Order: sequence, then C-alpha cells, then structure tokens
Amino acid sequence: MTIDDYLARIRPADEQAMAAATQRQQVLTKPAGSLGVLEDLSVRLAGIARQSPPELPAPAVVAVFAGDHGVHAQGVTPWPQEVTAAMVANFAAGGAAVNTFAATNGVDIRVVDVGVAADVSGMDIVHRKVRPGTRDMSTGDALTAEEVEAAVLTGLELADELVREGYRCLLTGDMGIANTTASAALIATFTGATADGVTGRGTGVDDATLAHKTNVVRESLALHDVPGTEPFAALRAYGGLEHAALAGYILGAAANGVPVILDGVIAGAAALVAQAICPAAADYFVAGHRSAEPGHSVALKALGLQPLVDLDLRLGEGTGAVLAYPIVCCAVRALRDMATFESAGIDEA
Amino acid sequence: MTIDDYLARIRPADEQAMAAATQRQQVLTKPAGSLGVLEDLSVRLAGIARQSPPELPAPAVVAVFAGDHGVHAQGVTPWPQEVTAAMVANFAAGGAAVNTFAATNGVDIRVVDVGVAADVSGMDIVHRKVRPGTRDMSTGDALTAEEVEAAVLTGLELADELVREGYRCLLTGDMGIANTTASAALIATFTGATADGVTGRGTGVDDATLAHKTNVVRESLALHDVPGTEPFAALRAYGGLEHAALAGYILGAAANGVPVILDGVIAGAAALVAQAICPAAADYFVAGHRSAEPGHSVALKALGLQPLVDLDLRLGEGTGAVLAYPIVCCAVRALRDMATFESAGIDEA
Repeated sequence: MTIDDYLARIRPADEQAMAAATQRQQVLTKPAGSLGVLEDLSVRLAGIARQSPPELPAPAVVAVFAGDHGVHAQGVTPWPQEVTAAMVANFAAGGAAVNTFAATNGVDIRVVDVGVAADVSGMDIVHRKVRPGTRDMSTGDALTAEEVEAAVLTGLELADELVREGYRCLLTGDMGIANTTASAALIATFTGATADGVTGRGTGVDDATLAHKTNVVRESLALHDVPGTEPFAALRAYGGLEHAALAGYILGAAANGVPVILDGVIAGAAALVAQAICPAAADYFVAGHRSAEPGHSVALKALGLQPLVDLDLRLGEGTGAVLAYPIVCCAVRALRDMATFESAGIDEA
Repeated sequence: MTIDDYLARIRPADEQAMAAATQRQQVLTKPAGSLGVLEDLSVRLAGIARQSPPELPAPAVVAVFAGDHGVHAQGVTPWPQEVTAAMVANFAAGGAAVNTFAATNGVDIRVVDVGVAADVSGMDIVHRKVRPGTRDMSTGDALTAEEVEAAVLTGLELADELVREGYRCLLTGDMGIANTTASAALIATFTGATADGVTGRGTGVDDATLAHKTNVVRESLALHDVPGTEPFAALRAYGGLEHAALAGYILGAAANGVPVILDGVIAGAAALVAQAICPAAADYFVAGHRSAEPGHSVALKALGLQPLVDLDLRLGEGTGAVLAYPIVCCAVRALRDMATFESAGIDEA
C-alpha cells in the first residue's frame, strides 16, 4: 500500500455520534458540565468510535519509536548519541520510566528501531530501521524523499498491525538523543514561530548550550526554508526518522478509527506533520500531557489541543501519554456507564 | 479512643526516607528532574511510607461521606435537598460518576451516611449518621460540640477500619447539596479570604443565586467570627457533618501512615480543618485535582499543595481524587522499579 492508500481511509469524526454523546452528557446524574474537560473528550471519543456511547478504548499500546539525529554532531546536547541505543536496551529490559508507567496503567509497549545509529539488531524489539540516524539538518537534508516515505510507511503499517492485533487506543512514544532539536525545527515550520519560541532545554541543557542549540535551529530553518504546507519536505529537511514514523503512526490511528494519545514535544511535532498531510486526522488526536519544553505549548496551541496532564514532565518515551490513558478511559466510562436522571429516579433541578 | 488518642499517633513524614528517595531519583535512568512533579511526589510518598522506595499505595479506597446542610433553606442552590439521598442511592447502585471512575482505576468505594437529612437506613452503605443534616449556619450554630466530636471520630474510626482491612491509600469523597456553601465559610475562616474570594457556582448556579449565596456566606462569617486557630469551633459554626467526618478521615490517614488523596473544594475545606487540628498531618495530603470552584484554589494555596489533575471538574463525589490515583501509583512505580544508570550500564552525561 502507498501512503495515499492509507490516507484515503481517514474520515472526519462522526458528527451524529458526537451530537448523541453531547445530548447524553446532559441527562447523566451530575450537574451539566461538571465533568469539565472530560465531557468534551467523551464527545470526541464517541465521534471517533462513530457511536454513542463508545466502547472503552482498550486495550492500549504505546509504540516507542527510536532514532538518532545527525545534528547531534553540532553539540546541541551533552548526552552522547550512544544513549539512544542504551535506552532502547533499557526499554526492552523493562527498566525505563515508560515501562513502569505502562505496567501501572495496563498499557502494552512496542519498542521500534526506526533509525538508531547503533546496531541494535540483537535486541528483542521491533526492527524497522530505515537508516542508522539522520544526516545533519544544519548542513543539508536530514533524509532523502525515499527515506521519509519508508519511515512514514513504517508508522502507518505498525498502526494497522496493532489494530489488527486488537488494540483500540494507540499511544505515542519516542527516544532519540537530540530529537528536541529536530522537533523545534518542525514546530517552527508548521506554526510560524521563531527558533527562540520553540527551542528548549530538552533533557536540561545549560544556558550556553541552549543558546547554541537555538542558533542551530535558526540556521537550519534559514537553510531549508520549507513552507508549512510541505510536510514531506519538512521531514526531508529536518528528520527525524522517529518523527516521520510517528507521523505515519498517528495517521494510521486515524485511518483505523482509533484515538491516538500524543506524548510530548516530539509527538506534537509529528502531529503537526500528520495534520499538514491530512487535516481530518486531527479529529483523532488526544493530547496526553503538556511537556515543560516550550515548543510543545506552541504545537498544542496550533493543534487546538488541551492536554490532560500538566505536571512539568520533560522525559518523552511516551510517559505523558501513558499517564493520561486512565483519564481517557474514565471519560468514556462515565459517558457509557453512568445512570441517567430518569434511570436513577432523580428529579432534575 | 478519643480524638487526642488518634492525634498522638501522627508523626511527620520521615526525613531519612525522603532524603534516600531524593538521592535515588538522581540515579534513575532519566535526566535529573525530568519526571517533574512526580519526582517530588515520590519523595513525599517515601517519607509517608518511611522507606525508600516505598511500597505501592495499594489497594485504594474512596470514602464518600454524605450529609445535608441546614443552610439549604436559604436558597443557596436550585437543587432540592432530596438529591443528596437520591445520589447516595445512586452511589450504592453503582450509577454515579465516581463509581465509573473507581471501576476504571481499581479503587474501591465506601459510601458513608454521616448526616443525610432523609432516612437512608435501608440502603447498602455504611451507616454512621450523627444527625439528619446540620442546622442553618446563617442563623446559629450548625452543630453542637458533641456532634462535631462524633462526626470527627466517625472519620478517624473509618480510616482505622479501612487500613485494618488492608487499604494503603485513602481517597476522599463527598456528597451533600449545599456543601460548597459550608466549604466557603470554612475556607474563609482558615485562609482569611473574603466571602467573595471563596464562594463559587457549585453545581452551576446563576448570577443572582451566586450573589445571594455569597451574601449568606458573608453574613454567616460575621455572625460566628471564628478565628482560624479554632477548628472545632469552625465545624460547630458552619458544619457540615461530612466536613467534620472528612477532617477525621484525613487525620486518620495520617495516624495510620498512609497517604490521603484529596478531592475538590469540600476536601480542601476539610483538609484545612485537619491541618489546623494537627499541622503534621499535612505531610500525608496529596491534592488529587483542582476544582473549578474558586475556593478550592484558595484552599490549595493555603495548604501548599499542587494538584495532579486540573481539568475543570466541579462534581465532587471523589471524582478528582480517583482520577489522580493512577498518577500517584506511577510516581511510586517509577521510583521503585526503574533501572539506575549503573544497573542499566549507561554512562551519565
């Protein structure tokens, strides 16, 4: 299948189911509107499921796409590139933060090598390496058109596979040293923000490194000058392989009619790419959390999303998406399982 | 046992365990501080458990204390008082929002009649009625000193019983038409805020009712003029029975060395009472969420607590506390189960 074949399957959320869910929220045993954000969320989940009330979006899985970045050579982070592969091994062994959150919240994990620079072929993960890391976006294109297509297709195919396996909610995860740098360039491209507005401390770099990182983003944006209407060109210019795969995975959730819970700034950048490729896909996006990374708030605003969790996390891996998953389930369970005033025999005020 | 017997058991959180947890957070496989609020939370949970890492705070139970309010006669809400008993029946039948959230997040429920005005003796709930509703706080004392003591003891005893049954995390819940009015008076008493600053729309009253409700709170505060150093006098003046029981329950969690996850504005008011009775108990408070009710933010600020969920909920029942429970578990699981840089063989940057 081509990318276009997948995109042809994406339909906007169902208006009729959303209208029915909105109406149902009015007759459940609670003051109108008292479940706040969860009421709007439940309405959208009904639209995604094309029925009100929807089924529980379960089981859920978080796909952690891992890739490396050529721009690492510019010194945008103190962490060595080898940490990407080491963390992939940590995910596989169950020792990372996302493993502990997923175990707590009943979310399965798939770790996907889509572009780790090191050889991780011996690890018990999903092997879909497109190439070992991107090229340096600050000196030329990070990826070729063919590599972008292969990575996007990887995400689309994985979403299809996971839904075929029975998953009804896809969560995004990511790992890649220097990937907040590529994210900043992508977010600036699709929102019109400046490098200063979207570049942050990532894992916690110092002032000098932040200034240098911001410069690298600014110069990369000037070098490529991709308009926000050209998502594939943006992926070619800046990467990363995990961003491209995530964009495909996000579009794949929409193509399969299941919600996708977005993690932090890397997911936000990938969601902007996905939205630019197919605007209707945005109906399927749920913002898991707000990252401390400034570019993420810029991305969320452009996507029109309100995050469910806002606790200063800046780790990635899918941690924020997994934290939000029970909240998504609660929103659906309330809409589906609560008594109505009539069924409970309560007079409305 | 007397109230003082329970209070004598309350110890501040363990500094040594907190120091060990703080140190452990630095060597887990993530950038320092990247789990944001969850790192501080995990440290406090270690202090509560007096060991690092602590055990998972499970199983958990939410106690929904129900009571009525004499001030309802002043027309502070359009909902009839009978809704309190009807909602208690709804909790018992499993049809309320808190039931659906609790089912999703694996939290048990105890519904406790501590002061419902109607006869609910036939319902399958915990029966600890102190009296059928408070007296009208706007015309005199809501409760006698004996009634306050009985309600506080009810909460203390229930906490003991639940911990004996094996629960390791207590969540607060509440139900009582007009209880945001009593909450406003309590919060004003302990924070020094004015009636305008703490009185809100509760279930969603209109402008005229809000103005009237604020006046009722203002006049009640002037009538009783209780200083913030006299928590028992404040409960006598304003009630409610569920606030008094919740204050006892919250203190009971502290006496048993287990965390208590606070729900919204009613819990916030009760936590201020509990803190005034025994300041050390505050070490055991976890703010589940921030309610849309303005008095709740005033209470959280005075308690020095940052809520885990902030999604414009204003329902009560314990919904916000139950929503937050998985986040509390994730904080502990990360501290307890993550690999260290050393165990994962990763060089720190």
